[in-house]
Amino acid sequence: MTSDVFELVNNPEIDIVIELIGGYTLAKELVLKAIENGKHVVTANKALIAVHGNEIFAKAREKGVIVAFEAAVAGGIPVIKAIREGLAANRINWLAGIINGTGNFILSEMREKGRTFEDVLAEAQALGYAEADPTFDVEGIDAAHKLTILASIAFGIPLQFDKAYTEGITKLTTADVNYAEALGYRIKHLGVARRTDAGIELRVHPTLIPADRLIANVNGVMNAVMVNGDAAGSTLFYGAGAGMEPTASSVIADLVDVVRALTADPTNRVPHLAFQPDSLSDHPILPIEACESAYYLRIQAKDHPGVLAQVASILSARGINIESIMQKEVEEQDGLVPMILVTHRVVEAQINEAISALEALEDVVGSVVRIRVEQLN
Amino acid sequence: MTSDVFELVNNPEIDIVIELIGGYTLAKELVLKAIENGKHVVTANKALIAVHGNEIFAKAREKGVIVAFEAAVAGGIPVIKAIREGLAANRINWLAGIINGTGNFILSEMREKGRTFEDVLAEAQALGYAEADPTFDVEGIDAAHKLTILASIAFGIPLQFDKAYTEGITKLTTADVNYAEALGYRIKHLGVARRTDAGIELRVHPTLIPADRLIANVNGVMNAVMVNGDAAGSTLFYGAGAGMEPTASSVIADLVDVVRALTADPTNRVPHLAFQPDSLSDHPILPIEACESAYYLRIQAKDHPGVLAQVASILSARGINIESIMQKEVEEQDGLVPMILVTHRVVEAQINEAISALEALEDVVGSVVRIRVEQLN
Repeated sequence: MTSDVFELVNNPEIDIVIELIGGYTLAKELVLKAIENGKHVVTANKALIAVHGNEIFAKAREKGVIVAFEAAVAGGIPVIKAIREGLAANRINWLAGIINGTGNFILSEMREKGRTFEDVLAEAQALGYAEADPTFDVEGIDAAHKLTILASIAFGIPLQFDKAYTEGITKLTTADVNYAEALGYRIKHLGVARRTDAGIELRVHPTLIPADRLIANVNGVMNAVMVNGDAAGSTLFYGAGAGMEPTASSVIADLVDVVRALTADPTNRVPHLAFQPDSLSDHPILPIEACESAYYLRIQAKDHPGVLAQVASILSARGINIESIMQKEVEEQDGLVPMILVTHRVVEAQINEAISALEALEDVVGSVVRIRVEQLN
Repeated sequence: MTSDVFELVNNPEIDIVIELIGGYTLAKELVLKAIENGKHVVTANKALIAVHGNEIFAKAREKGVIVAFEAAVAGGIPVIKAIREGLAANRINWLAGIINGTGNFILSEMREKGRTFEDVLAEAQALGYAEADPTFDVEGIDAAHKLTILASIAFGIPLQFDKAYTEGITKLTTADVNYAEALGYRIKHLGVARRTDAGIELRVHPTLIPADRLIANVNGVMNAVMVNGDAAGSTLFYGAGAGMEPTASSVIADLVDVVRALTADPTNRVPHLAFQPDSLSDHPILPIEACESAYYLRIQAKDHPGVLAQVASILSARGINIESIMQKEVEEQDGLVPMILVTHRVVEAQINEAISALEALEDVVGSVVRIRVEQLN
């Protein structure tokens, strides 16, 4: 017991330092000092690893020590180990995860009970699931930290948190949750990383998933990560994503791993980012405009004949195929017709153009709601 | 390339032998000889490990070599690694798995399409999912091999395949599948291992699971293992349970693990059965009569007043509480009334007694159908 953490990392009797402080400032200084002093480190700090991991791992390698971070992603689920070791034989094609429990709790409540985002968030804060400042959770920043780490070990790329695209769940309405349901989908706040020939997609956003996919049925504060590899196919890892004991479960597993590796030649250890540093790929992270997915569009239109034809013609002119369409009755209060479409896969820049054209139509009122759709098959 | 496998295990140039033959005879001799000659072994042979693992691991320990067997359980899902390493900090309370793809395919088809067991089995054989002799799959023997292995590494007990209880899915009817559905359950062929104060439950049998549990939604040939630990809570590991490439994925992961551990002190390696041999527990495997679960009972009764009262009184006299009850209309063809009950948890010997008493009732016709129920929460 000490009131000066640096006493710990400077103590020559200590071999392994466990950092559970969080944040980038003190924690970063402490971890770097511990490594500098030849100590192994176990950490649950996703922000630190996602933002400063490249620097930390380079230093650790130089000093021949291990920095273990299973608890940094998806709490008690041993998903780092699964990807880095269990699926070592696979070329990973993509992964998709529900990796923020607060966000999933909010979306589950909205769907199951028809509650609004604001209402559930207030409850989550009262229950202690969500922080007083919920920005990290509901804007997808926390999920992007974890996704950045998962993508690095899946694809053998350096950590590039600054290039991750994040879109929150704050603007989701129960109307969209219900329309999605009617179309056979669930909305989840998903972290998606996909390898394409052009580059790596790295994005966190609300996503429609077919309701019969296993990951669409992960509810409440639970987490799950789906990983698609060329040999194993799709696997899924599910469990508690946060909490004192699930986190401790992963921290202790890391501690055991570090001790097991103590007598091994450092070059024989599992590399921090799964790949040896000289094998890391410089495959670029794609900007969101170059990412590809299907789209759910909700258009509020005036009840005039010919609107559907105009909408269809704007989409087809840009080579965007429609997979399904649902037109609701005229809404009493404003006389508008909600028109809901799901498109085939298309590059985001193209759907943006189409949306601008749709919004410019005289019979279309307000903004077009756009939510990405992933089949995950 | 050789036509004599023993040339391989006697070749001093070879460090690691991968055994993918299957069966207990030649494979056993080969593996023991490889160990004898100081070679590490990677195997996908669940029958060999479940039945002869204690002997094989003792020999391997004596010779300081590793026998890795991730591919022996649940194909491409790294579940051995997850339990043995990822959840090392946990005292495992129970685990439950869908660990035979053929059986799960048959049950999924019966539920989704209302087909009979025989009909789907014939198709599975035609598709090559099921062997010409499907006994190992549909009678639960294959699943019991895998469950035996999972239970050993979860609870730190020696492999005791001969004490596993197995009950097949051959007698399941679409009527029971539909009644289960109406009660909010799905029927899965589950391997269940649970630690109780009296001993370890180790059993494979058809099981009703609440339809909203994630594992109840694992369909087709896919596998999943749910593990409940005291720290991590419930986790689930899902993926392809068989097939050339998923199996190869696990074999190569094992190969990488063996190579990583080559330079480590043998005493620092992950023990074969997760626990050090001198820490293995002699907690007994319970006979099925001493196992506890809830029960689904289907009784065919004559349409006489007072039958329900007689049934209820037989159960209550034995302290068996009824959780839900469903009485159907009189069946046209035989004039009998199907009465479906789900009980609370009770020891199996007690339900057996109750069933004998029920079958002795004058108004009860034929055998009472009994299927175990697990809440998995």
